[in-house]
Amino acid sequence: MTKESGKESQQAGNREITPQSEDFSRWYLDAIRKADLMDYAPVRGCIVFKPDGYELWELIQRQLDDRFKATGHRNAYFPLFIPESFFEKEKEHVEGFNPELPWVTEAGGEKLEERLAIRPTSETMIGHMYAKWIQSYRDLPVLINQWANVVRWEKRTMPFLRTSEFLWQEGHTAHEDEADARRETMQMLEIYKEFAENVLAIPVIAGQKTESEKFAGAVDTYSIEAMMRDGRAVQAGTSHYLGTNFATAFDIKYLDRENTQQFAHTTSWGVSTRLIGALIMVHGDDKGLVLPPKVAPMQAVLIPIGPPAKRESVLAKAAEVLADLKAAGVRVRMDDRSDLSPGWKFNEYEMRGIPVRIELGPRDLENGQAVLASRVSGEKRVVALDNLVAEVEKMLADVHKELYDRALQFMNDNLRSVDSLEELKANDDKLRGFVLAGWCGSRECESKVKEETGATSRNIPFEPGETKSTCLVCGEGAKHTVAFARAY
Amino acid sequence: MTKESGKESQQAGNREITPQSEDFSRWYLDAIRKADLMDYAPVRGCIVFKPDGYELWELIQRQLDDRFKATGHRNAYFPLFIPESFFEKEKEHVEGFNPELPWVTEAGGEKLEERLAIRPTSETMIGHMYAKWIQSYRDLPVLINQWANVVRWEKRTMPFLRTSEFLWQEGHTAHEDEADARRETMQMLEIYKEFAENVLAIPVIAGQKTESEKFAGAVDTYSIEAMMRDGRAVQAGTSHYLGTNFATAFDIKYLDRENTQQFAHTTSWGVSTRLIGALIMVHGDDKGLVLPPKVAPMQAVLIPIGPPAKRESVLAKAAEVLADLKAAGVRVRMDDRSDLSPGWKFNEYEMRGIPVRIELGPRDLENGQAVLASRVSGEKRVVALDNLVAEVEKMLADVHKELYDRALQFMNDNLRSVDSLEELKANDDKLRGFVLAGWCGSRECESKVKEETGATSRNIPFEPGETKSTCLVCGEGAKHTVAFARAY
Repeated sequence: MTKESGKESQQAGNREITPQSEDFSRWYLDAIRKADLMDYAPVRGCIVFKPDGYELWELIQRQLDDRFKATGHRNAYFPLFIPESFFEKEKEHVEGFNPELPWVTEAGGEKLEERLAIRPTSETMIGHMYAKWIQSYRDLPVLINQWANVVRWEKRTMPFLRTSEFLWQEGHTAHEDEADARRETMQMLEIYKEFAENVLAIPVIAGQKTESEKFAGAVDTYSIEAMMRDGRAVQAGTSHYLGTNFATAFDIKYLDRENTQQFAHTTSWGVSTRLIGALIMVHGDDKGLVLPPKVAPMQAVLIPIGPPAKRESVLAKAAEVLADLKAAGVRVRMDDRSDLSPGWKFNEYEMRGIPVRIELGPRDLENGQAVLASRVSGEKRVVALDNLVAEVEKMLADVHKELYDRALQFMNDNLRSVDSLEELKANDDKLRGFVLAGWCGSRECESKVKEETGATSRNIPFEPGETKSTCLVCGEGAKHTVAFARAY
Repeated sequence: MTKESGKESQQAGNREITPQSEDFSRWYLDAIRKADLMDYAPVRGCIVFKPDGYELWELIQRQLDDRFKATGHRNAYFPLFIPESFFEKEKEHVEGFNPELPWVTEAGGEKLEERLAIRPTSETMIGHMYAKWIQSYRDLPVLINQWANVVRWEKRTMPFLRTSEFLWQEGHTAHEDEADARRETMQMLEIYKEFAENVLAIPVIAGQKTESEKFAGAVDTYSIEAMMRDGRAVQAGTSHYLGTNFATAFDIKYLDRENTQQFAHTTSWGVSTRLIGALIMVHGDDKGLVLPPKVAPMQAVLIPIGPPAKRESVLAKAAEVLADLKAAGVRVRMDDRSDLSPGWKFNEYEMRGIPVRIELGPRDLENGQAVLASRVSGEKRVVALDNLVAEVEKMLADVHKELYDRALQFMNDNLRSVDSLEELKANDDKLRGFVLAGWCGSRECESKVKEETGATSRNIPFEPGETKSTCLVCGEGAKHTVAFARAY
């Protein structure tokens, strides 16, 4: 334990966390403050990612990066600044992002001839470079990802979920034809879904965005949508088939196998630090955070207990156990501070969401055992010290599964199907959960749902479970079955 | 091999690399272009880090990060934007950085009330946050590092070595007293030195910067300086003891063990993507790059050879060998393209600086052997296939050692000692290499060396080898023995 975290814990321990049922937003802000994940920065809408918050991102990053590399992608880095003229080249793109751009107008003591935007996303810059790099079908596909900071000057912000500057990855690929680009688009969406479920223990609904909700400049946008514990949705990842829109705007052309000039088909896909907000809102409870084991910076905490007289022998064994666990790759720390009670520590690490607590006392030592406690179920297991590493690993796997199952159950419990706008509004003034409904495909009907309920179309699920036949607003034939929800 | 790199190689193969002796700068630009490490971006002084260039950075990053974590540091992330008023708080700091800052003056469609600088370094922002986080001696030390992009609007730029936007890490720590802060400052310098030598195979001269060359706002700055193959220096890493300068400016105060308010003592330290430029200029030769094995994205290339009739059996064995090497953690790729000759491939991978080439042909198969070729010495070793993994690992270790020894020899050969400015200028109109000389400590004498030779004081070496007694300019008694050099 560093002195830093010790002190912050002591401060934190004196304050309460608002119950989720009372005020979910306040619960969220309390929980992340007490777990010391972030602080507000002195720049509008920006946060500081403190070490425990940033390490969550590092663990997300590494596990996603492995998946990108395993599917043939490589990382690169493109400039932060984008000349104003680049945005003008793709009409929908500039309309979508212009209102959110910060502009550099002076540098090195001089006014710039052309304003430079801070990147909100890099399709334009990367499109410009790909036009230089791609000449022939032999240069394709280009499969590149970038880890970077981006900025969108947002009006309403919320730590992790929506901040002016945030960290993300953006994949940008170029392909010979539509089929190959669409294959890539779906592959990356599938990777996001698998990652959300298997790493973050977050079940998601995968589907296609409607015209009005798609990415500015895309032909088709696909998303995974997760349900927070207040029933609101978070878009947890998106993958776009950009057609030849950016290729046309930036002249990404290649000589095909028949020696004819063709525009490349491009894709882009991204997830961001908002995943940190999502995993907290999906798994947390009234005690505070509950971290999914595969991204928890501390997966287990070892707490030696017992009277001072026995302290030395307990600590000696605890040090051994700690070394064994670390050697096995478990991210574990010991809290052997003698000025704090075990009870205080139990509360502290529950609040911080540490998946597994290991208790070791004099009696345990005599019996060759330790006690494991699960953060999610509260279950305690008495386990043999000889088998401790395997038992801790097993409980970590169980915690992951319990988190996923609980979140899936919650999502299913809060997913309903309606036939009309009236039915939608009837039993819920603040719409809660996902609502499946038929939709005729018109912007008017989609807007009306938003105006009257605050819910937006999240996506058109690939597997809606049931198919609705009439539009919930106009009653005409439904083209799609859509998942609506209020969203962060 | 991806199609992308295949095509670029074919293009590259047709162009020449200027010899180092003819024009070292052109050699450098040719070498990095042919190895496909970067491209120029459409923003002044910015580059795109292409995959082979970025992966060098990823490998540097991971190995440095391990060292930071092993010494108790954790990563965090602070905002890109720094309010103008923050710079005003530390007088020397603002004077040092103001000329290089880009300013955001508009965002979200409105003119900002206060201009925001793009960070050139983060002492001010982090100082502001530390003032909030640090209250008591129990909160100290704070040991935080940040991996980030920074921007300095430079007049003259050079890929990797000096670009408007670059990537770096910046450590920022706060301590109870001077002794602890100075211990940290030296520890981090020592880590940089060990990393340069043991990972990048670059020998360096560690020492203290003179007053005029130190970091804007520091009490003392220390650096490691490396020698490029044209005899010029590159500052490869710096570590600063900031005293209480930033603590005073930002009010980083704590209650000490005697219950008295004290200012914290802070440090900062950083290395950047200029290390990529340095390792190329230290190790490269007229054939192109020579990559130090521990950061080479491709450590070994496997090239199957022989007539088409035998191709199938060679490829089958090559696939086995490839799998074995990968399983052992060697970063290896196979180039089995049938439309390119082995000779062409040999040249190609020499140009790209791949440390070890593995040749495998039908006769090798019969004899249960393979041929290894070292990029640095050209040495060829016939080795038993049964022992291939160990032999490749051995040659990688040998290449590292040869690179280091060669660079050290070169540095020593180009290190001389002079007693006067006249002697310095006598046999060299373009000063080449490091020059040790006595210095009285006055700014005037230091400036005169620069004016008349273009050389700047690099640092005051901890281990100069010899101690000079008189100042090379004024002839008065020397306070220090300084290493001068022309620098990038």
